[in-house]
Amino acid sequence: MPEDNCLFCRIVSGEAPAVRVYEDINSIAFLDHRPLFHGHTLLVPRKHFETLVDLPTTQVGPLFTAAQTLAQAVEFAMEAEGTFVAMNNRVSQSVPHLHVHVVPRRRKDGLKGFFWPRTKYKDEAEMKVVQEKIAVALQNFSSQLEIQKIKHTKS
Amino acid sequence: MPEDNCLFCRIVSGEAPAVRVYEDINSIAFLDHRPLFHGHTLLVPRKHFETLVDLPTTQVGPLFTAAQTLAQAVEFAMEAEGTFVAMNNRVSQSVPHLHVHVVPRRRKDGLKGFFWPRTKYKDEAEMKVVQEKIAVALQNFSSQLEIQKIKHTKS
Repeated sequence: MPEDNCLFCRIVSGEAPAVRVYEDINSIAFLDHRPLFHGHTLLVPRKHFETLVDLPTTQVGPLFTAAQTLAQAVEFAMEAEGTFVAMNNRVSQSVPHLHVHVVPRRRKDGLKGFFWPRTKYKDEAEMKVVQEKIAVALQNFSSQLEIQKIKHTKS
Repeated sequence: MPEDNCLFCRIVSGEAPAVRVYEDINSIAFLDHRPLFHGHTLLVPRKHFETLVDLPTTQVGPLFTAAQTLAQAVEFAMEAEGTFVAMNNRVSQSVPHLHVHVVPRRRKDGLKGFFWPRTKYKDEAEMKVVQEKIAVALQNFSSQLEIQKIKHTKS
């Protein structure tokens, strides 16, 4: 299961060094060594899954419960005013092992975040086209997800 | 439970318009009307919770399983190469009702994301101080979280 060339698998196994801040049976968290702000933490599943979509559904709850706990702890520890909790799936993903960023935030901290620039929909009709595309995709995936769930229940 | 002045509570109840793309018993998702890219979706719990930390632990799994489903569907629907899945808790949070952004991404799409500028830790010792602060915070919260869990189990 662990991938030899994966930095985060090597951190999980202890082969690569990291400053750990959290551990449970499914996941570990450690400080990002090039943080946006001090206290910037990366939460990773112990097993190698590339993206959020690859994570077995049974592990989604435990991972994000850990993320919730960490968000509370990181905010408090760093005397912050809020947090930014995020995942890059494939694009902008530096290490192809799912990791949830938990970043302490303060107002006027200089992090513009991902909110610029915004775009628009030309009109209602253009939005409806997108709505329909997502509806079709959801229909395609719902059956696949059921199969996936049954697999994980059996394994 | 719904807050009169909350835009997302009004979207959930149907009072305010939105182009919906997903619904389940706990959550709904709709298109952001000022998207980063077309297909940018906001997933919200039906009940009013301000941030990730405020979400009852029993609802964490269902919400992020929905986020996972949406990430897969939005990427496929928009013929994207990946997704960005993120929450702003308080700071940079436009509407104080927890919402998970699901944004389709493509390489070189112009979204620099939140990765610049990065900072550093002066040395190992400075990292250890932060590690210790988070460890203390986690210890403080673990007992609170247990109480919270018991409350939700009983309610």
